[in-house]
Amino acid sequence: MSQCTSGMNRNMRATFKKCLGLLLISALLLSLFCAWSPGTSSRVDIRSRQRGRIQKLLQGKIQDTISVYQDIGYHIKDDVASHLAQNTCVCRADENTFQLPFSNLLFPRVWAHDIVLAFLESHPDPSGVKHHRAQEYGSFQKRSYNPADVLILAEAMSPLQYPTQGVKVRPLKTIIIPGLGLKEETGSNHTVYLTASLGTFDVAATVDRVSVEGVGEKHMILSSPLLSALNRQLQFVTYTNTVFHPKTADTVLFATDVHRSFFTIKVEHGIIPKLYNTGNPKEYNISALVTFATKTFLRYDKLKDLIDSIRQYYPNVTIVIADDNEHPQAVTGPHIDHYIMPFGKGWFAGRNLAVSQVTTKYVLWVDDDFLFTANTKVERMVDILEKTTLDLVGGAVREATGYTATYRHTISVEEGGEEGDCLHIRNGYHHVIEGFPNCVVADAVINFFLGRTDKVQQVGFNPRLARRGHLEFFIDALGSLHVGSCSDVIVNHASKIILPWTKTDSDKAYDKFRYSSSSAENDIHKEDFYFKDRLKCMTSH
Amino acid sequence: MSQCTSGMNRNMRATFKKCLGLLLISALLLSLFCAWSPGTSSRVDIRSRQRGRIQKLLQGKIQDTISVYQDIGYHIKDDVASHLAQNTCVCRADENTFQLPFSNLLFPRVWAHDIVLAFLESHPDPSGVKHHRAQEYGSFQKRSYNPADVLILAEAMSPLQYPTQGVKVRPLKTIIIPGLGLKEETGSNHTVYLTASLGTFDVAATVDRVSVEGVGEKHMILSSPLLSALNRQLQFVTYTNTVFHPKTADTVLFATDVHRSFFTIKVEHGIIPKLYNTGNPKEYNISALVTFATKTFLRYDKLKDLIDSIRQYYPNVTIVIADDNEHPQAVTGPHIDHYIMPFGKGWFAGRNLAVSQVTTKYVLWVDDDFLFTANTKVERMVDILEKTTLDLVGGAVREATGYTATYRHTISVEEGGEEGDCLHIRNGYHHVIEGFPNCVVADAVINFFLGRTDKVQQVGFNPRLARRGHLEFFIDALGSLHVGSCSDVIVNHASKIILPWTKTDSDKAYDKFRYSSSSAENDIHKEDFYFKDRLKCMTSH
Repeated sequence: MSQCTSGMNRNMRATFKKCLGLLLISALLLSLFCAWSPGTSSRVDIRSRQRGRIQKLLQGKIQDTISVYQDIGYHIKDDVASHLAQNTCVCRADENTFQLPFSNLLFPRVWAHDIVLAFLESHPDPSGVKHHRAQEYGSFQKRSYNPADVLILAEAMSPLQYPTQGVKVRPLKTIIIPGLGLKEETGSNHTVYLTASLGTFDVAATVDRVSVEGVGEKHMILSSPLLSALNRQLQFVTYTNTVFHPKTADTVLFATDVHRSFFTIKVEHGIIPKLYNTGNPKEYNISALVTFATKTFLRYDKLKDLIDSIRQYYPNVTIVIADDNEHPQAVTGPHIDHYIMPFGKGWFAGRNLAVSQVTTKYVLWVDDDFLFTANTKVERMVDILEKTTLDLVGGAVREATGYTATYRHTISVEEGGEEGDCLHIRNGYHHVIEGFPNCVVADAVINFFLGRTDKVQQVGFNPRLARRGHLEFFIDALGSLHVGSCSDVIVNHASKIILPWTKTDSDKAYDKFRYSSSSAENDIHKEDFYFKDRLKCMTSH
Repeated sequence: MSQCTSGMNRNMRATFKKCLGLLLISALLLSLFCAWSPGTSSRVDIRSRQRGRIQKLLQGKIQDTISVYQDIGYHIKDDVASHLAQNTCVCRADENTFQLPFSNLLFPRVWAHDIVLAFLESHPDPSGVKHHRAQEYGSFQKRSYNPADVLILAEAMSPLQYPTQGVKVRPLKTIIIPGLGLKEETGSNHTVYLTASLGTFDVAATVDRVSVEGVGEKHMILSSPLLSALNRQLQFVTYTNTVFHPKTADTVLFATDVHRSFFTIKVEHGIIPKLYNTGNPKEYNISALVTFATKTFLRYDKLKDLIDSIRQYYPNVTIVIADDNEHPQAVTGPHIDHYIMPFGKGWFAGRNLAVSQVTTKYVLWVDDDFLFTANTKVERMVDILEKTTLDLVGGAVREATGYTATYRHTISVEEGGEEGDCLHIRNGYHHVIEGFPNCVVADAVINFFLGRTDKVQQVGFNPRLARRGHLEFFIDALGSLHVGSCSDVIVNHASKIILPWTKTDSDKAYDKFRYSSSSAENDIHKEDFYFKDRLKCMTSH
């Protein structure tokens, strides 16, 4: 019996061990499966930015708020009202009242270019391209819509205290919402409600005599008979973002039974800075701080003169050269990076290429027919970028005649409605810069400038512009670059005063290529103003 | 006498005419001078973003508001409180509780890399570079400071109604401030004050029985015995930005004698969109929509195979090739743009170059050893970018063994204080995408992806990374790119299963160059994590 029992026990133990083993393996596999499910299985709809229930409540509230007092009369102040943006912009040149001889030289006239007309009149399918542009713009608006831009009004005499700006959470992280409070006097029980769309609420600490419902949910209710206890509890309310998006905002509704307030929690990563390690910050080591960049075509002789002139003052600075010659020649020397492009790829493609290769904090743009002199003090340009919020500073280019140009312009965009916006370009600048008396703030400058490499790379040079282009870069830079211009950093321009019979073959070839604007080239510019920039009109001197 | 007189008269008339002429010319020159003074002569201090008087008032108010109720006790909820960001981040790997064999395969362990230690221990001047980084970061913070990010609280029971979000003016333009109001009951005279720093106030219309002082100034006072009239007047208050900056905000103080409220008017250009004209939007014309981009080095045979495989499915698509071989060979064929770089410039420099040349709406990144098959449906990638807010979508790469990788990762940054931030990289994704069941949202994907050209160009590829690099692009993209990954668009990887004795000379040369990580290469990576990205720690699988 004992032998039988012990035999049975051994079997049972063996089976038991097998079962335990199987159980362990299943548990392992189960945990494996759970651990390896590397995301929530939740879905997110990113086909367009939805305006949810809270957004609709907000819109309704604004409508109510601004529709009062309509019966009280007013007298329009024309000089102010005329400066307000209209629903559309008018494509109109200045009225020219002076008709004196040479008035156009003394008072540069403003011209209006109707971009819509110029582009559509020569297009085979004007209504098609118009429709296509509207579609692309619609998609662009959907992608760039951010609830943090929507109009919100703070209601007067509301017992609610809340943050109206400055609340930010990193995606999928948790923060305490600062500044929530309730300041009402009446009532035996005090209740507030919190509602969100892209995250949930909780509390980082609990306070006695306060009831909190909906912890971990998108809707939370806090109430207490003691107002002070409720306010203390409100100091610990947390928000956790649960619907991932790298850059959006959650509109939060904070309400009592009677009053409603809305505020925004921005959901975004912190900015990871792009810092350049440039060695000893006490002296300006131009070779460590700056890369010189240029584009060359059919002018190797001028390019060589440029390089020789640079080396007199900056023997070790890296020079990046973008070259789209049909038969490229070697350009050699220490600290020279020479890039060969397909033939005739063009001006802006070359600029974008050259700038894409820069690893230093700053990039100095030079044309291949510039000449450095003792007045070309790049240190001065570095100084102003180191000490101010400017992202780019232009210098001055001196012609053989002695005439020196800074080519300063201001640019503004007037909203235009469905037909597109109106772009206004004028000669001039905005302000002189405190501490830098030869320098001003502008929106566009001459083609000799120092820029923060990361910012210039972010704007970029539109590689479609092959033969000509200058202001296009500054139009693309609007809103991104803080631009300045200093008249005391001067580079020379190799003489353009060439008598026709002294022109070299390469001069003639260059002129032929550069200055014969093909209609294809013009078409590209027109198309980009109309479609890419969505402009209706451009006015300029 | 008459002859004399008439003679004198003639002289006088001549002189008079000369005087008149001179007067006219002087007037002309004077007007010329005034018209030609192309900017205000005012100065602007852009040496750092000043926090003015209003900002200080605001800070004081917040201090007062959040310091109440300190005497009421609370009980911390650890599970919530532990998710709140601390002042610093700790560089710690996961605690490995499972010690089973192969546990590392089943449960990928998280490793912590102390970036500060790794970089500073081998640096000749650790305290110098630490100080330099802090300085660069300080400048960066000054340049990026925007009053629109500052915390503002709405006071409870304030009679003031005002906009808390969404008010924007283009630089130097004028807008009506929406939503201003006063809702108090008491008092025989109702008065409100408006104060700004970067602009002035005015009214677009006047209302009877309301007195308005300080029109055209930075400080305006409106008062009336009739509350309704004052509120009607407040509907016409305008703000004009007068201190130019391309992207800033003015904090406005709106107050009564007793109450103060603060709100922000953003001063910025409207976004000029970058729209691509891609022809008929009904069908996906891949040649019009997409440019394929790649970088090649020592693998012309594989590159040729790639191109041949592409041409089977996309005969007309443009292929941009960045080539940094020591002895470049010609790569010819229709729709091929071949760029020659200085020898060994490297991986990310090549990627940045290739992408800088793209003129189509989308860019498809491919490695030079990929092979297209019938499963490589670029149309599917275009479809998801056309229909969602994604900026970049990765596909899947199939090895010769059949193993297919999507390399999905999530990335988050934890704020770290002075030592730098902590970067956390994990395998996995955030959510499945509604409507696209094989696609997910992530932060990093495999090196086969379609991206919006303008967004990819804005992020860029750090040209310092020569031999290796992948996640660095996605780290730089954090917050800029909405990233997805679809497992059903598959490209093949040319086989890496090569028996040692069958390796060609070019295989051997490539392996030698690519896989012998020089310490210089490692140093660059360490330096960029420490300095450029200002990181303290990185944790990853």
